[in-house]
Amino acid sequence: MHTVSLHSMVHEVALPDGRRYPIVVGGLQALPEWLDRIGLQRGRCLIVTDENVAALHLDLLRTTLEAFGWLPHALILPAGEETKSLTHLSQIYDAALAWGIDRRTPLLAFGGGVIGDLAGFAAATLLRGLPLVQVPTTLIAQVDSAIGGKTGINHARGKNLIGAFYQPELVYADPTLLLTLPEREWTSGLAEVIKHALIGDADLFAFLEAHWEVIRHRAAELLPQLIAQAMAVKVRVVVQDERESGLRAILNFGHTFGHAIERVAGYGRFTHGEAVALGMLAALWLSHQRHPELPFDRLCSLILKLPIAQPLDGLTFSLLLDAMQVDKKTLASRLRFVLLQALGKAYVTDKVSVGELQAAWQFVLEMRRLAVGT
Amino acid sequence: MHTVSLHSMVHEVALPDGRRYPIVVGGLQALPEWLDRIGLQRGRCLIVTDENVAALHLDLLRTTLEAFGWLPHALILPAGEETKSLTHLSQIYDAALAWGIDRRTPLLAFGGGVIGDLAGFAAATLLRGLPLVQVPTTLIAQVDSAIGGKTGINHARGKNLIGAFYQPELVYADPTLLLTLPEREWTSGLAEVIKHALIGDADLFAFLEAHWEVIRHRAAELLPQLIAQAMAVKVRVVVQDERESGLRAILNFGHTFGHAIERVAGYGRFTHGEAVALGMLAALWLSHQRHPELPFDRLCSLILKLPIAQPLDGLTFSLLLDAMQVDKKTLASRLRFVLLQALGKAYVTDKVSVGELQAAWQFVLEMRRLAVGT
Repeated sequence: MHTVSLHSMVHEVALPDGRRYPIVVGGLQALPEWLDRIGLQRGRCLIVTDENVAALHLDLLRTTLEAFGWLPHALILPAGEETKSLTHLSQIYDAALAWGIDRRTPLLAFGGGVIGDLAGFAAATLLRGLPLVQVPTTLIAQVDSAIGGKTGINHARGKNLIGAFYQPELVYADPTLLLTLPEREWTSGLAEVIKHALIGDADLFAFLEAHWEVIRHRAAELLPQLIAQAMAVKVRVVVQDERESGLRAILNFGHTFGHAIERVAGYGRFTHGEAVALGMLAALWLSHQRHPELPFDRLCSLILKLPIAQPLDGLTFSLLLDAMQVDKKTLASRLRFVLLQALGKAYVTDKVSVGELQAAWQFVLEMRRLAVGT
Repeated sequence: MHTVSLHSMVHEVALPDGRRYPIVVGGLQALPEWLDRIGLQRGRCLIVTDENVAALHLDLLRTTLEAFGWLPHALILPAGEETKSLTHLSQIYDAALAWGIDRRTPLLAFGGGVIGDLAGFAAATLLRGLPLVQVPTTLIAQVDSAIGGKTGINHARGKNLIGAFYQPELVYADPTLLLTLPEREWTSGLAEVIKHALIGDADLFAFLEAHWEVIRHRAAELLPQLIAQAMAVKVRVVVQDERESGLRAILNFGHTFGHAIERVAGYGRFTHGEAVALGMLAALWLSHQRHPELPFDRLCSLILKLPIAQPLDGLTFSLLLDAMQVDKKTLASRLRFVLLQALGKAYVTDKVSVGELQAAWQFVLEMRRLAVGT
């Protein structure tokens, strides 16, 4: 396993109403110093994590905290999307209240997107709000889901239908944790990093292009910069639009098709990032129709470097269209798409015809056919 | 039944971060105009209420809304504290999502404190936040619980242990709804009105003294002023301290003993207001020890006019003390008390000895003995 420079990089989320919190890229060993710095009082703290993360990294987190005088109590939940449920939320409530917490007891969400969303929602609602520290352990969580305050659980009728906007006091991303990620999980994260580059940072895109082979193999020396720069895109968007009334929607680039792909294929067949990568190809095609000056081939070719092996069998356009129309992000039955007008510049439109969507999906299928053919 | 003047009175909650919403005392018939005024788009709206309120007032609310082009859908829950549970919360989630809502669908909490807290929490967490309209139907909810954004449910380990701070878009109090309240519920509300006067409004206290007999019998012509003035105390406190970090605690005047009384007696034997009234007597006694210039007899005598018939059997001091110490409002095991330094001026202290507490409770028992004796 590589070692990663512990030189920490820091962003700050400064919301318009005055709330602000730091976002740190650094080694887990320095986390307790940051807990002090943001003003948490050492004492009890609750760690919510899953079985996979616990097996790999919980001992390190626990001993690090204990060395600084914390009394951590860990709740280990099953890994996987199924855990984002009212049942497991209730389990966190029971465990936290049985163990004994007060309004100053921090809750550390130590895991990927599922744990971040679920434990974040528990923190939002226990005693009407505990101090929340996000310690994301996947690339996708580090650059995206742990930042911005969206928390929640799934409901039988759809994903993320129950939740709250609740900002953490600190987001703390340790790049070394990513070295143990399964390969597909890593690829899924890279897809989100590419998304951030496309919608908000042309320099990051060039960085990815220039160092792709090294990054793809998780070369430790590039991870902190990669993470910090991809985080910055999310921070900029969230600062301008905490509640997703407008700009924040651009983070859904590739997600209209992406969510539909996940739904039609059945959750689990594609990772979220894989589905979003395919969705981004479609969104780029739609963007290029409107903005011919877009460097279409260049943008697509980075996405196509993602090693996505799953075949697209069964993903017919009509099934995808049906699935898009039940997506909760479509307000009052109008489909909204995020498109690019230039590299690093995204916008939202609802002026996309069914014919164009079908052509865009046809383009994705062809690209895949070519990719598999080579 | 009396009729009440529909001349509406309006406060505004203007929070430091710029959020603001109106608090209106007016007839239900004018509610739809207010929904327009705060910018809600007519269409579907969800009403959450309980069986008691539904039987008395739901038809009026429904037809009023329909007359203005709304499509209301009512969810009617059992009445009582038991309803403030994860089970019923989940029932609201299921019903709302099955019926079909989007992020602009308003949720009207139409009931007393239980419905306001529960439905408010559902609104806070459905699709990460629906527009919430509080339409309180009890005196205690109109002047206190519907204002300020506290929402939540109970847990097996205690009341209100799960919840969120979530501000409504509108609080709309119709005084005529109070005319159908059961007598003890009315008395309970009057106790909270007296509390508001004691901690924040000497004029309101004088108003209550001057018109006590008329108010006690719910003379319709005085209700709007009574409600509006008692609301104003809550509004002032909430505006200064949304998250209960300091000042907001003064709203707990009488509540340390009050909660203990409810817990020891078993929920339901005393109404919340009855328990708080007894708690206020104890708090006044403690206040008078420190501030001899306080018009102690005058303040106690208004509280003693509340018709509280329940005997205090079994409420021994040692049981009450134990119950106080598990109250979640006690941070890090220190008991905090709200005391008065003058009529209309409250503060929080943790410098109260067990001996004093015992003497204060002794005073309450004696007062009751005298009251029952007359």
